[in-house]
Amino acid sequence: MYFASDNAGPVHPKALAALAAANSGFALPYGADAVTDQVRSQIRTLFEAPQAEVFLVATGTAANALALSCYCQPFETIFCSDVAHIHEDECNAPEFYAGAAKLTLVPCGDKMTPAGLRRTIANENTRGVHGPQRGPVSITQVTERGSVYSLAELRALTAVAADFNLPVHLDGARFANALVALGCSAADMTWKSGVDVVSFGGTKNGLMGVEAVIFFDPGKAREFELRRKRGGHLFSKNRFLAAQMLAYLTDDLWIQSAQAANASCAYLQQGLVAKGAQFLHPVDANMIFAAFPRAAHQRLHQAGAMYYIWDGTLEGDDPDEMVAARMVCDWSVTRAQIDRFLSLI
Amino acid sequence: MYFASDNAGPVHPKALAALAAANSGFALPYGADAVTDQVRSQIRTLFEAPQAEVFLVATGTAANALALSCYCQPFETIFCSDVAHIHEDECNAPEFYAGAAKLTLVPCGDKMTPAGLRRTIANENTRGVHGPQRGPVSITQVTERGSVYSLAELRALTAVAADFNLPVHLDGARFANALVALGCSAADMTWKSGVDVVSFGGTKNGLMGVEAVIFFDPGKAREFELRRKRGGHLFSKNRFLAAQMLAYLTDDLWIQSAQAANASCAYLQQGLVAKGAQFLHPVDANMIFAAFPRAAHQRLHQAGAMYYIWDGTLEGDDPDEMVAARMVCDWSVTRAQIDRFLSLI
Amino acid sequence: MYFASDNAGPVHPKALAALAAANSGFALPYGADAVTDQVRSQIRTLFEAPQAEVFLVATGTAANALALSCYCQPFETIFCSDVAHIHEDECNAPEFYAGAAKLTLVPCGDKMTPAGLRRTIANENTRGVHGPQRGPVSITQVTERGSVYSLAELRALTAVAADFNLPVHLDGARFANALVALGCSAADMTWKSGVDVVSFGGTKNGLMGVEAVIFFDPGKAREFELRRKRGGHLFSKNRFLAAQMLAYLTDDLWIQSAQAANASCAYLQQGLVAKGAQFLHPVDANMIFAAFPRAAHQRLHQAGAMYYIWDGTLEGDDPDEMVAARMVCDWSVTRAQIDRFLSLI
Amino acid sequence: MYFASDNAGPVHPKALAALAAANSGFALPYGADAVTDQVRSQIRTLFEAPQAEVFLVATGTAANALALSCYCQPFETIFCSDVAHIHEDECNAPEFYAGAAKLTLVPCGDKMTPAGLRRTIANENTRGVHGPQRGPVSITQVTERGSVYSLAELRALTAVAADFNLPVHLDGARFANALVALGCSAADMTWKSGVDVVSFGGTKNGLMGVEAVIFFDPGKAREFELRRKRGGHLFSKNRFLAAQMLAYLTDDLWIQSAQAANASCAYLQQGLVAKGAQFLHPVDANMIFAAFPRAAHQRLHQAGAMYYIWDGTLEGDDPDEMVAARMVCDWSVTRAQIDRFLSLI
Repeated sequence: MYFASDNAGPVHPKALAALAAANSGFALPYGADAVTDQVRSQIRTLFEAPQAEVFLVATGTAANALALSCYCQPFETIFCSDVAHIHEDECNAPEFYAGAAKLTLVPCGDKMTPAGLRRTIANENTRGVHGPQRGPVSITQVTERGSVYSLAELRALTAVAADFNLPVHLDGARFANALVALGCSAADMTWKSGVDVVSFGGTKNGLMGVEAVIFFDPGKAREFELRRKRGGHLFSKNRFLAAQMLAYLTDDLWIQSAQAANASCAYLQQGLVAKGAQFLHPVDANMIFAAFPRAAHQRLHQAGAMYYIWDGTLEGDDPDEMVAARMVCDWSVTRAQIDRFLSLI
Repeated sequence: MYFASDNAGPVHPKALAALAAANSGFALPYGADAVTDQVRSQIRTLFEAPQAEVFLVATGTAANALALSCYCQPFETIFCSDVAHIHEDECNAPEFYAGAAKLTLVPCGDKMTPAGLRRTIANENTRGVHGPQRGPVSITQVTERGSVYSLAELRALTAVAADFNLPVHLDGARFANALVALGCSAADMTWKSGVDVVSFGGTKNGLMGVEAVIFFDPGKAREFELRRKRGGHLFSKNRFLAAQMLAYLTDDLWIQSAQAANASCAYLQQGLVAKGAQFLHPVDANMIFAAFPRAAHQRLHQAGAMYYIWDGTLEGDDPDEMVAARMVCDWSVTRAQIDRFLSLI
Repeated sequence: MYFASDNAGPVHPKALAALAAANSGFALPYGADAVTDQVRSQIRTLFEAPQAEVFLVATGTAANALALSCYCQPFETIFCSDVAHIHEDECNAPEFYAGAAKLTLVPCGDKMTPAGLRRTIANENTRGVHGPQRGPVSITQVTERGSVYSLAELRALTAVAADFNLPVHLDGARFANALVALGCSAADMTWKSGVDVVSFGGTKNGLMGVEAVIFFDPGKAREFELRRKRGGHLFSKNRFLAAQMLAYLTDDLWIQSAQAANASCAYLQQGLVAKGAQFLHPVDANMIFAAFPRAAHQRLHQAGAMYYIWDGTLEGDDPDEMVAARMVCDWSVTRAQIDRFLSLI
Repeated sequence: MYFASDNAGPVHPKALAALAAANSGFALPYGADAVTDQVRSQIRTLFEAPQAEVFLVATGTAANALALSCYCQPFETIFCSDVAHIHEDECNAPEFYAGAAKLTLVPCGDKMTPAGLRRTIANENTRGVHGPQRGPVSITQVTERGSVYSLAELRALTAVAADFNLPVHLDGARFANALVALGCSAADMTWKSGVDVVSFGGTKNGLMGVEAVIFFDPGKAREFELRRKRGGHLFSKNRFLAAQMLAYLTDDLWIQSAQAANASCAYLQQGLVAKGAQFLHPVDANMIFAAFPRAAHQRLHQAGAMYYIWDGTLEGDDPDEMVAARMVCDWSVTRAQIDRFLSLI
């Protein structure tokens, strides 16, 4: 009963098998191999973006920070939700890679609203050279609270960015879960919605550790390559990153895994509703924030269920009557696990 | 009728005279001269801190950013008011000097409260290595809204910092104005109140461009010297920074200048009260935030009065009925100027 | 006939199998899993260093730059060979991670000599705060030219560092190949020889992409963890880095792989000697720098042999009579491949 | 008898007087004042560059590091002499401002040769993304060894840079001394010779602390302004930097001061020749590197003469028979001082 995160489950067997398949003889290092070529080509097709430039890195933090660094000068500021992963969970990596830039938070607690984003951007850079200049807008899809922006919402946000002539980054660590929730295409959720660069996550959806960074403007490619190397994120044996990603894209594995995760989450949600749990955020993809009685939490805890109590601790015991918990489903969670979890509440 | 800022008035004649007096023959460069020695000694006496280390730089941004950089690791965050100068008006300098650290804002709009600071600090660093670690607390005295922390308020804030074992920086760009307002000693307002390092401003109080950075823990001295040089802030002809500062400290020039500025401000405030102006913030030192009718603003503007309209523009014309303005008095403003200003409202 | 690098060959089947073995169910992320614990414990045993702190990253550049950043202030300089990997092949990563520190090169063209290192260090930091301060010494073992420092040579270098009270980093991307060449223990080649932190490479010796950073002073551990996260180098699914490393350490796989590579290299060298090739550097481990006639190069090239021509190009055609080439053997190269290669010269 | 440096003598009385003259009433801060406007205009005229953008900072290190940062990406390297001030005497400031870029040294010991520069540039960036990319070339005029590049030499260097499409920075801390030595125009020595940005020094030639940074391509202006502010180098009371620079440019004060310094140096050189001193470098401007007997050094030292012994210490006593010394003349040194100095040798 592991619902702590989708970053700790097993790797999908097809991804593992792809590693073995890629392991024959020598291959040119640093991404000059044939598998990386195939990935590049498939992602261009998938995103309907023949000009796009595609790079692989091994962590989501690297993907986000490197992508943003290509769109942000050191004297600029990045606009994002006040609960964005790049703000809360990357230990200043975006600031580091962007040469000591700032993050300016849009107060929202989950999804940014166009009005809130506009107000925040308008408020910045009204002080000549004294304050930081306006830099990129970063949108997290799925959000850190489990919400999914609709295409209309996405486009309203990127329209605000466009009004200020600012580039847009999409943190898609859970890209697949969002896409499945929306039932749209990869192009719909990115460049057709005004996104310039996307972190296309694989790690949280069944891969071992691979994210693609996709630039719809190929002019940024060279800078990215140099920043990736400088950050220590260029793999010599890049074919093994590529092999995972290729498996991911083959036969819609990435879609199926996200569908499984979202479906599990919906099933868990239904059960929680039936048990009278209260929900703190909309459940749009594969994450649930819910509150249930402390006694239920204690039973679950004793039975070995794992999830984050929403004071941020995994192991704590909330003194209040009700316990707020974050539960995440990955592709591998079973109905039996969920049923047992629900039976304990 | 120049009330736009205290950073644009004339240099006090005594400071100018000191430059001439220091200009005889050769002097060892980079602060090894006799005048710098005198400044160091006088500041130690003034602050009742014989161990203190004292350095001169030419701008307030340099003073703040360099001071903080000695107390902040790149993976940490600096706590400050959401309207702090280091956040709004230094174009990412603190982030730059601290190696891409973050600033975490305490929501307050002016003075931080101990409870607000505590909540903000407590909220940070609850995510293991994933979020930035807690770094120094920076307090602006006088605040950017013209308020002055009482000694009790200061100590309540530094007590919060001490609870988390965090160092405290005081941005004293208007140190003298605050000290005069409180009627306390320099030691009272710094190390006796739990401050570890202070930016002791001169530029806004009649000098040409000098700020002292004072470390009460001499262990930080060497690092500061190296960071100052690396930042390009070590002057070869340091004696001319020192000469200004020496004049400032001699015969209480710094006190008298601040008293003059604060008194002018109080006089202006009284006049504004009589005219029915509304005040946006307490008037504790030499800054006033007040609203008056648009017609009055237009008369003032036409007559050449200068102050910031509080949408941040100096020259704008607010469409609303009432215009919010920031007015700052420096040491040199005259009663006649103020009277004329008031007569136009 | 792939002799271009040891970073492009196949992953050892045992390392691949270990990935599959680690892939059961959920495991705590970010290195809190059991496999990572085992690795930590085994490395402590292997290095006879029960206090050592051990971290895994996925690339050699990350290992080096992060390790050095814990020992280098931004106003310091790192001493290394003028052909060190950290200087030539990491695209400013050490400078980036160390906050814009400098690298000071010891002129040598391959191995640093104690006298050369001493002269270079002595020469630095004679200018007060004006020049960079002396920082860590970084030694590459095996060097980028295929040489191996004897234990006596290593100790003479670290003794120089100790004279200046400087910490020592060992870039052991080819640690195993050096150790096998010297026939010493891991402790002998590190802390018993005055090394403070080591990049213990796995990627060039049969792993998919794993390097361990080992601190013999555990006091640096926390800083490293934060810098690793900030750099985007903390893997959520850390167990898969650990699994590779565990396989590497099990049943001396790392030793056997390095023995195979070194033996292949020695065999290739013998053949080249017999063919009259000239050697540009000593052949101590698994790399050969040799010159042979252009005609031989053209035959090899046509037959598909891959190695770097030592103007830095893989594909080029040197106009000179003799072609200088770098050839590297990894664990997987076969005698048949070498024989064929030799037959073409 | 102070020959230690031209950064420690008195400020020219005209520069001091200009400060007083600028000190009337309020002036718009941050360079929006009339004096700064005049400086901008006069420098454009002087350099025959009506499009040039001109900025003032207070130190040479700030001028160099900020200028270079506008032409250098973090993954690039700056080419300069191995004794350049930016390498030896700025404590990593260029690296800091350029976001952790590298400096690549051209071996020369004084002036770079075109062949040496070409070889060094050609040698860099032959490794794809693995090594740093080629960045700006920085030329020091007067060099740190007192040499002056002829216009032909300058143009040969910038032609090499142009061959590689690299921008050129001129560190003109002693710009005036070089110009006087060459008898050319400011335009000749800069944009007509292929220079893109120049640090135009005033501090070493009689000012209190002012350097102009002049961009011949105005497209860099905005970035410079933001980087200057971010570095803490934007002065609120910018008029006092401008006033010094205006005095400097008025009635050829800058030329006359440099002529005086160079003439004193030539006079000192003649005297040293007569005394049989040996010269370590050509004496082209206002610096002499000469060796004389230890006994002479001891007499000079006892009589209070100040100069650097060329092991880098000001006070040391070289054990050798001959003492190598650096002697610098500024605008204020008198014949009487030189005569007395010579009489003691």
